Amino acid sequence: MPQISYEIIAECPDTRARVGLLHTPHGSIETPVFMPVGTQATVKGLTQRDLAEDIGVPILLANTYHLYLRPGHELIRKLGGLHKFMSWPNAILTDSGGFQVFSLSGLRKIEEEGVLFHSHLNGDAHTFTPQSIVDVQLAYGSDIQMVLDECPEYPVSHEYARQSMLRTVRWAKQANDHFRMRIADSPTRHALFPIVQGSMYPDLRKECARALLDLDTDGYAIGGLSVGEPRPLSLEAVEATEDILPRSKPRYAMGVGMPAELPEYVARGIDMMDCVLPSRNARNGYLFTSEGRVIIKHARYREDEGPVDPNCSCYTCLNYSRAYLRHLFQGKEILYSVLATRHNVQRYLDIMREIRHAIKLGSFLEYLKCARSIAAEAEARAEV
Amino acid sequence: MPQISYEIIAECPDTRARVGLLHTPHGSIETPVFMPVGTQATVKGLTQRDLAEDIGVPILLANTYHLYLRPGHELIRKLGGLHKFMSWPNAILTDSGGFQVFSLSGLRKIEEEGVLFHSHLNGDAHTFTPQSIVDVQLAYGSDIQMVLDECPEYPVSHEYARQSMLRTVRWAKQANDHFRMRIADSPTRHALFPIVQGSMYPDLRKECARALLDLDTDGYAIGGLSVGEPRPLSLEAVEATEDILPRSKPRYAMGVGMPAELPEYVARGIDMMDCVLPSRNARNGYLFTSEGRVIIKHARYREDEGPVDPNCSCYTCLNYSRAYLRHLFQGKEILYSVLATRHNVQRYLDIMREIRHAIKLGSFLEYLKCARSIAAEAEARAEV
Repeated sequence: MPQISYEIIAECPDTRARVGLLHTPHGSIETPVFMPVGTQATVKGLTQRDLAEDIGVPILLANTYHLYLRPGHELIRKLGGLHKFMSWPNAILTDSGGFQVFSLSGLRKIEEEGVLFHSHLNGDAHTFTPQSIVDVQLAYGSDIQMVLDECPEYPVSHEYARQSMLRTVRWAKQANDHFRMRIADSPTRHALFPIVQGSMYPDLRKECARALLDLDTDGYAIGGLSVGEPRPLSLEAVEATEDILPRSKPRYAMGVGMPAELPEYVARGIDMMDCVLPSRNARNGYLFTSEGRVIIKHARYREDEGPVDPNCSCYTCLNYSRAYLRHLFQGKEILYSVLATRHNVQRYLDIMREIRHAIKLGSFLEYLKCARSIAAEAEARAEV
Repeated sequence: MPQISYEIIAECPDTRARVGLLHTPHGSIETPVFMPVGTQATVKGLTQRDLAEDIGVPILLANTYHLYLRPGHELIRKLGGLHKFMSWPNAILTDSGGFQVFSLSGLRKIEEEGVLFHSHLNGDAHTFTPQSIVDVQLAYGSDIQMVLDECPEYPVSHEYARQSMLRTVRWAKQANDHFRMRIADSPTRHALFPIVQGSMYPDLRKECARALLDLDTDGYAIGGLSVGEPRPLSLEAVEATEDILPRSKPRYAMGVGMPAELPEYVARGIDMMDCVLPSRNARNGYLFTSEGRVIIKHARYREDEGPVDPNCSCYTCLNYSRAYLRHLFQGKEILYSVLATRHNVQRYLDIMREIRHAIKLGSFLEYLKCARSIAAEAEARAEV
């Protein structure tokens, strides 16, 4: 019995793109959807009201690893789960912590039972197992949780990638068994997605996807992207499994991507994406606009009375000039991060809205071509 | 002809407290009023919408010194003035830069014509004169501007304090003459307040206030407070001039104070105050509540599901727990500063609302006594 149901409501005949409705305990979400990243149970600089009411974010991603270390899943459970803890009314997806264990923690040891690692905060030793990570995410009350996976760096040998992928599949099975046992008597609906790995080897990705089909889960994630590989390889990795993963289930490409890449993933059958870029780049002074990138510190914006993006209707663009944002950035003001993040997250949500709209209207192929030529142009100019 | 008119609408028979209406080009303000500090044309962490619409701030203070150095008054003028630059719909008061020149800039030299100083940002040499500071604030378009003053540190000798006060009076006259000439043909109404100085010597403060009366300005500021003196001395400094400054004009005590001090200043005839404490203390983890101070990092708040202040109706208190705020503080999250500042500024505004309410109802003396006993109790407990 599916925990989180999914229905396709429009399809693009020329690509794999589709619009769907993902029904979660915290609302029905139109896909393709972009999930802002709330690592420590906060999207840096934005209030939950900004996100839910102003920007209209239907689902957030939070990081299992970070919240496990601080404040701890037991505290979050005690305080009523992650939604209540952070006062978030809409859906939450949590990752498995695999990516963070492999990217953030110094010492780590992978064993068949799980992964031993040291906290990046204080060096304390911890172990994640496929089962414990399900328990942690159930304590959070995540609407959609991920299985523990190994996320290999790039590049790795085919042999290493295969052994790692096979372990990820074994872990996924164990996680799924444990998850089904744990939720058997639970009144709350949660979904668990396994993660396709296999580094940048299409044959391994196909093998992995086929093996995961047996688990009959409510959706599938594609992991191991954005680990340093050239961008075309990320798209190829997604393409490798597009015919294998069941079209009736949502697919989530983890950790992608740049604005111009969003329609590319959608064209390859992806329904869900998350990325720190809109928020992190905002804080670093990089603003995404419908006309290309704005590097706000540049002197050319010193007297610029216009909004960050003349085509944007976010709170920032409706009320503040580039000159004011540049002034705040120069002064290292908190309000700079608040306003810049607000705009960048809105930009990502707007792109996803445009994409869904184009699919519904049957014009997605034109949209994709147009997005490609704008991206190429922007690349050439480098900046607005 | 007054630029900014003021009318008293209620008075406390037992103290000097009164409720008034200050009519500015950007709205009529009920006094006594607290002005949050927006040093660099932003109250750190809060959007202008949070301030104007949610919290209901009718007037902000911005710092002449900081904005003169960056982005510069000419740029602000070019972009339509400070209100437009920072997208602020309500009134703005700017200080004279005197306090900052004396507290922030390293090298400085006081001469009869003005003060030479070096920027704390890059060491560049600048000069402020009584006239130039009027011009700078006219470029900002401040509703209420301050004259250049010398703000001596504490303690200084009576002789130094007297010479310095006399120079401040001479500067105030020059500033006022220049201001009247500059605004003679201006359609916009702006007010200029001179500043009472005299260190902690009541005789000098009285002499200063008497000398300033000749200028017939729209209001008076009391400066040289919060420069390191014991708190009772600040109140004495204000008391020294309460019978000299005309009761028909608003009086502004610069840079005060702690929550418990607000009614004390009001009882001494003060109508306007500003202070960085609500915003700075918020960022540092100190939250003001109706029940005393909350130091959010303390372990006792780890599992505390309650709001920062159960009697507060700010966005933070209505939506987030102490446990969540503590988590954000521990994680050095921007959202911590945003939510904490929002609460503390709201707390100050609420205190001022209570004070005005009590004066109107004729219960201000009881309010003051009650506030004193709560403050004494809180002092004894040190924390909620």
